[in-house]
Amino acid sequence: MAGTPTYATPPGFLGVTRQDASGGTGIAGIPMDIGTTNRAGTRDGPRAIRAASRMLVDGAHPGSWVDPAELPLADLGDFELALGDIQGSLARIEQQAAAIDHLVALGGEHGVTLPLLRALRKKLGAPLGLLVFDAHVDTWTDNFGQAYAHGSVFYHAIKEGLVDPARMIQLGIRSPVQREVWDWTLGQGVTVVTAQQFHEAGPQAVAAQVREVLGTAPAYLSFDIDALDPAFAPGTGTPEIGGLASWQAQAVLRRLGGLDFRGMDVVEVAPAYDHAEITALAAAGMVWEYLCRG
Amino acid sequence: MAGTPTYATPPGFLGVTRQDASGGTGIAGIPMDIGTTNRAGTRDGPRAIRAASRMLVDGAHPGSWVDPAELPLADLGDFELALGDIQGSLARIEQQAAAIDHLVALGGEHGVTLPLLRALRKKLGAPLGLLVFDAHVDTWTDNFGQAYAHGSVFYHAIKEGLVDPARMIQLGIRSPVQREVWDWTLGQGVTVVTAQQFHEAGPQAVAAQVREVLGTAPAYLSFDIDALDPAFAPGTGTPEIGGLASWQAQAVLRRLGGLDFRGMDVVEVAPAYDHAEITALAAAGMVWEYLCRG
Amino acid sequence: MAGTPTYATPPGFLGVTRQDASGGTGIAGIPMDIGTTNRAGTRDGPRAIRAASRMLVDGAHPGSWVDPAELPLADLGDFELALGDIQGSLARIEQQAAAIDHLVALGGEHGVTLPLLRALRKKLGAPLGLLVFDAHVDTWTDNFGQAYAHGSVFYHAIKEGLVDPARMIQLGIRSPVQREVWDWTLGQGVTVVTAQQFHEAGPQAVAAQVREVLGTAPAYLSFDIDALDPAFAPGTGTPEIGGLASWQAQAVLRRLGGLDFRGMDVVEVAPAYDHAEITALAAAGMVWEYLCRG
Amino acid sequence: MAGTPTYATPPGFLGVTRQDASGGTGIAGIPMDIGTTNRAGTRDGPRAIRAASRMLVDGAHPGSWVDPAELPLADLGDFELALGDIQGSLARIEQQAAAIDHLVALGGEHGVTLPLLRALRKKLGAPLGLLVFDAHVDTWTDNFGQAYAHGSVFYHAIKEGLVDPARMIQLGIRSPVQREVWDWTLGQGVTVVTAQQFHEAGPQAVAAQVREVLGTAPAYLSFDIDALDPAFAPGTGTPEIGGLASWQAQAVLRRLGGLDFRGMDVVEVAPAYDHAEITALAAAGMVWEYLCRG
Amino acid sequence: MAGTPTYATPPGFLGVTRQDASGGTGIAGIPMDIGTTNRAGTRDGPRAIRAASRMLVDGAHPGSWVDPAELPLADLGDFELALGDIQGSLARIEQQAAAIDHLVALGGEHGVTLPLLRALRKKLGAPLGLLVFDAHVDTWTDNFGQAYAHGSVFYHAIKEGLVDPARMIQLGIRSPVQREVWDWTLGQGVTVVTAQQFHEAGPQAVAAQVREVLGTAPAYLSFDIDALDPAFAPGTGTPEIGGLASWQAQAVLRRLGGLDFRGMDVVEVAPAYDHAEITALAAAGMVWEYLCRG
Amino acid sequence: MAGTPTYATPPGFLGVTRQDASGGTGIAGIPMDIGTTNRAGTRDGPRAIRAASRMLVDGAHPGSWVDPAELPLADLGDFELALGDIQGSLARIEQQAAAIDHLVALGGEHGVTLPLLRALRKKLGAPLGLLVFDAHVDTWTDNFGQAYAHGSVFYHAIKEGLVDPARMIQLGIRSPVQREVWDWTLGQGVTVVTAQQFHEAGPQAVAAQVREVLGTAPAYLSFDIDALDPAFAPGTGTPEIGGLASWQAQAVLRRLGGLDFRGMDVVEVAPAYDHAEITALAAAGMVWEYLCRG
Repeated sequence: MAGTPTYATPPGFLGVTRQDASGGTGIAGIPMDIGTTNRAGTRDGPRAIRAASRMLVDGAHPGSWVDPAELPLADLGDFELALGDIQGSLARIEQQAAAIDHLVALGGEHGVTLPLLRALRKKLGAPLGLLVFDAHVDTWTDNFGQAYAHGSVFYHAIKEGLVDPARMIQLGIRSPVQREVWDWTLGQGVTVVTAQQFHEAGPQAVAAQVREVLGTAPAYLSFDIDALDPAFAPGTGTPEIGGLASWQAQAVLRRLGGLDFRGMDVVEVAPAYDHAEITALAAAGMVWEYLCRG
Repeated sequence: MAGTPTYATPPGFLGVTRQDASGGTGIAGIPMDIGTTNRAGTRDGPRAIRAASRMLVDGAHPGSWVDPAELPLADLGDFELALGDIQGSLARIEQQAAAIDHLVALGGEHGVTLPLLRALRKKLGAPLGLLVFDAHVDTWTDNFGQAYAHGSVFYHAIKEGLVDPARMIQLGIRSPVQREVWDWTLGQGVTVVTAQQFHEAGPQAVAAQVREVLGTAPAYLSFDIDALDPAFAPGTGTPEIGGLASWQAQAVLRRLGGLDFRGMDVVEVAPAYDHAEITALAAAGMVWEYLCRG
Repeated sequence: MAGTPTYATPPGFLGVTRQDASGGTGIAGIPMDIGTTNRAGTRDGPRAIRAASRMLVDGAHPGSWVDPAELPLADLGDFELALGDIQGSLARIEQQAAAIDHLVALGGEHGVTLPLLRALRKKLGAPLGLLVFDAHVDTWTDNFGQAYAHGSVFYHAIKEGLVDPARMIQLGIRSPVQREVWDWTLGQGVTVVTAQQFHEAGPQAVAAQVREVLGTAPAYLSFDIDALDPAFAPGTGTPEIGGLASWQAQAVLRRLGGLDFRGMDVVEVAPAYDHAEITALAAAGMVWEYLCRG
Repeated sequence: MAGTPTYATPPGFLGVTRQDASGGTGIAGIPMDIGTTNRAGTRDGPRAIRAASRMLVDGAHPGSWVDPAELPLADLGDFELALGDIQGSLARIEQQAAAIDHLVALGGEHGVTLPLLRALRKKLGAPLGLLVFDAHVDTWTDNFGQAYAHGSVFYHAIKEGLVDPARMIQLGIRSPVQREVWDWTLGQGVTVVTAQQFHEAGPQAVAAQVREVLGTAPAYLSFDIDALDPAFAPGTGTPEIGGLASWQAQAVLRRLGGLDFRGMDVVEVAPAYDHAEITALAAAGMVWEYLCRG
Repeated sequence: MAGTPTYATPPGFLGVTRQDASGGTGIAGIPMDIGTTNRAGTRDGPRAIRAASRMLVDGAHPGSWVDPAELPLADLGDFELALGDIQGSLARIEQQAAAIDHLVALGGEHGVTLPLLRALRKKLGAPLGLLVFDAHVDTWTDNFGQAYAHGSVFYHAIKEGLVDPARMIQLGIRSPVQREVWDWTLGQGVTVVTAQQFHEAGPQAVAAQVREVLGTAPAYLSFDIDALDPAFAPGTGTPEIGGLASWQAQAVLRRLGGLDFRGMDVVEVAPAYDHAEITALAAAGMVWEYLCRG
Repeated sequence: MAGTPTYATPPGFLGVTRQDASGGTGIAGIPMDIGTTNRAGTRDGPRAIRAASRMLVDGAHPGSWVDPAELPLADLGDFELALGDIQGSLARIEQQAAAIDHLVALGGEHGVTLPLLRALRKKLGAPLGLLVFDAHVDTWTDNFGQAYAHGSVFYHAIKEGLVDPARMIQLGIRSPVQREVWDWTLGQGVTVVTAQQFHEAGPQAVAAQVREVLGTAPAYLSFDIDALDPAFAPGTGTPEIGGLASWQAQAVLRRLGGLDFRGMDVVEVAPAYDHAEITALAAAGMVWEYLCRG
């Protein structure tokens, strides 16, 4: 082990000090959290995920053997938002995301994924494939009266044509849900793998299903940390029991080599409910899997 | 999503405001905890489980498609107890339970199950079948000198003829135990599935075994939250490692359709040792599985 | 001690089950928190304050000898809000507050005080006197771009003529502040007692000053829990060291007999940062002081 | 500093390994907690107080210059109790206490003080003087139906003639209380110093009052940790805001030289609600003050 | 259940009061922690593991039916160390370990294993077989400049010939690692089972592999608690997601009957990061599995 | 309020992004913690203090009206240390400190103050005056065998002639201490103000005493956070009850205008034991007082 001891790692994600993302991957925090419906506080997610990532600085991924220290990573800091204003914040997020070639976003609530998909959709000129880890389908038409909160992100993404529902798959779904929301989601062509289905099929089979649904066209990865069980990710606002273990998520991600991901986010980390950084570690670990993918 | 945002859900279980259980299911807290032998505080279980249940208010069960909002549920508040007096409390619990058609009880310690079984036994005129999730057999003859504490509930239930041992099955057993207690339990005809046996057989096989043992005659479900591993349920008084994941318990419960359960309890939630409500969420979730069973 | 043991107190504030406030005092939660600027989560304040109030149910105030059980109290539940929408929420809060004769509000962030003052101002037809406990002057013209967030509540209250600055006094002020904000506040005629001044003068002198500033005309009490030191109130979003002890706040409140308060609020309790309910206990205790004032 | 580093101090109180108290002071835990009325768990008090006492092992008291390492101390372990049985436990406590010359007891709830006073009263043949630190008068005739729980300890002590009310003084009182309980207490001749009175008078004046009330006849010290403010002692079951700072309690105790104390207890430490051992440290510190008194 | 209630168990490991290990197994704490590289505090591991072991006192192992109360166990307290001095501490540990026939050590950091192996190697006159549970290979040549810190323990053990790499197997490995460290480890002949490999193969297959690698010659067991997933063991300094469940570790250990273990340690428990004792329970449980092995 | 919302403040102390301290004040973390004697973990102090300082970014000090945003501050990151090696680390600290004109150090344990004083002493060519806030005199000759651990820092500082004992004053002292250590300290000419003396004299008198002792020659400020009471600073390794309130420390610091401080440190913040950042806030606040002094 060389360099700075783990506990004194500089504050950027993976200790990165480079702040210019051109030609590489830009990591940015998006501390928006005013559209959440249960426990609050994902605004503190970016700081916590960056801090927890210090555990992953020193060495290569023991599978792909990619060493993130050799990747062209930059930590861009946090996006500017409109305090207390959802629509204003979504607009600013889209604008800032548009300026980055390859963005990895640290939420913040799941609502931030919508403007990220809008920006990517414009760049690509075509709908994206979408892999979602989540406990919730997030295709509600509204959230107790609010159209643009965290439970509606994929309703809008589908309605706006940002993603191709036939190339969209959700893993870990298990919350209570209205039958009409469920039927609408499947009716659009989305593939839903419930947590119970995941547990029974095992990650190998699930990874194969993901590969089949996504194909090789451009895709996006959105990882809502509540896909993991509250035992593995207590630090989140809308926890649901019966979820995934972190090794299961890793086992899927490690089998997605060759897919054409154009960006990712990890969202819904609420550090005030975390313990011993385990949720932030899981979030940082999923980004690390993405960055070090084969 | 309609109605009140999750964080402002009214304080009854699942936000229920109805307080009359006639013709439906009554939910009641039983905050008795003076017969515990290690960590204290299950008296706060009912309050915590009710609060955590807010996550399950909005939508149907994504398996049975039962929507608890359409069920005839009432929250009866907490039972009256005799402070600092085990025997007095057991008598009061039995009396109050006898007045309710279909009771779902939120403990409190496991000792509260005994008067609930006594009340049901009187109503039915015959011993009940019994499905228990637990880390402990709870068939000790005494608890460091106390006959009616949480480790003896099933010793008394069997001795008093409240349950039919041949129709009794325990899942998740793993604590240290005296050989004679173990032998007595099996000698009575009880089926014991240890946590290790559960992990190896898988929930599908275990559910089949439960169905076979319980049959279709009237039965009762007692869910001691310490059946779950401390990772999934830290907020309990006598935790034992090597336990079940919450998805495993769900996977069993979802395969028990058609069985004739006449009541249930979830016990041993000690919120002072919980973190981010994960234990209370698991307890609320098991009640929800029961209420939404097919 | 009679009735229900403390740990099983019903969920209303002080265990109150009455829900009709006509002719008495209505207690309501206002779980709005989207205009906060540092740590999140005051949406959970009402639930936590109600739960903590169980410690104050049984007996009279050992000073005024008022017994809250004999007061005409009602717990009205939580106000409806517009999720993720500050202006919409302020409008709804004002509307609901207008319908209540005498309101005690449990926040929520300090932003909720503005519509409460608007409603009262309309009822009275004249500006109110105002006693504020707070670490911050809350007279900023904006909050990182947002006009109606928690740091601007008294800027608007003064500009809108809701309060009479000459009859307004703030206790416990100590945060960093721009000199122009400070000067504007004092320039309006507001009396500011810093935390250091309070510690040196003692509560007796401060209470006399409060009486002099407020006079006997109608007044309002707004208690931001961050007036207390983080040692006494860790569960808040913008903590500042050097604050008041809870006994000091009590000592002031107990010397305000005969003043004509028309309502009060306690705000900025963020339970995710609380420990062992001490912040919620302090908040409940300040409401209790108000209700039991001589 | 010599010997074992603080973090590896042996587990006895102050690291004491001697287990024979003859001719000296015996320290014993009394982990009874089934008569509490709000938060549970003082059964874990003795373990936590012993662990926290490691901070006080190395060196003399910087006031009296007594070094506890030179005192004839023994740690007797925990008393045997009757699990789940208040009356049975009180009888066993009295019996075990009777066999010890000079006992310092680590509770457990305040109910344990009654049998300790009974044992001392028998030994002395006369009522004791009594100094109590407490937030509650503890002279209720019952506790939600239970006669011998923690709120009635001094009702019984007075009724049974164990203490001389004219030589009894309580410091820090501040909870809600029924007027008749208050009047009965004062009517018996007990001196009550409320927390507000203490804060205004200061510890010097209070200590003088204690000396005057207790006189030089045999007396007993009972320190309920909830006399301290929740900021200083969050780890307790019935916290009340507005309490004492730990330095104030120390300042009184250090002015009681020459009084004839025949024993003491520290009670109501509930470690599950403590943070960073601060409550246990306060409890250990009060015992240390007592042991090192001049 | 007989004897002392669980919550009042004496402070030795498993409540053991015997302090002479001759002819049996000696349990000792080794609170060294100055060679850690991320979060601190394993010095408090021995105290926490002993306290948590109270859950395992009463009864036999429900598999091997060994009752630890019948084993010749002694708790020797904590080893003496050189404060703030790694090399000095290693020397003292080796010296103290050499005097004990059969030692079970409670860490402390993983660095303590090196002198334990040195002492055993001298006794046996031959290299040991080694079973390691760990998230990290711990074969780094240094730790940010320090040769003898917790990441280099097995580098030295191999280089010094303390263990036979061909009879060494590591389970649960998953941290980032430099390719050359990985290659060196495998090049020495060490068998590495990654966490992902473990999850896919299952504990039955892994146990068979362990038996094959270790053979029947003398061996040692070193259990780094971070082999478990942070969900199961949050209280550790260098947590890595994707780890083992506690039941999986148990399932391996229970299949190692007949192997010739000459000692074991459990290391890297950092109680300040634990919650509700779950990490300490896991550590105590692994020692219990070892002591009760068939 | 302008710029970035508080929760998204950049990670430098007070959000500072400048990294060149020439001509101004350099802030640096010194995460050394291997010489502590009780609870561990001050290595995480710098990160926590920086994060907590975000509360102090926006606005001027409401007393001196200094705005830190207008000061020439730079955050230099953390010093390099020799992992697991006290003497090596002290040497590196001194070397790095020597290169900085005006250093504010964020510990780390109190042992780091020694090399800071060594570096300053060399620069000045004369012994420094010294103001220490601390619960402990820190003039032990050794620490359980270790000469250079946190309890000996001022023993060495005096012996090495780094400070002038006649111009050295300690505030808040209250731990147990050997009489000979006490006598030696006072015998050297050091002024010791115990916590009890401080509480009785009040901060105004104490500040006058500090001014008298220090005079106007160059001086240094070392703030051990355990000077504060555990209620105000639970997150530290060697807490002692009876300590200072944060307002008292502020009240002293604000009366030291015109003294010639050449540097300061705040040490002994152990975040694993902190709650809701209150200890880190206190530490950041003391640095802020120093930076904004008149």
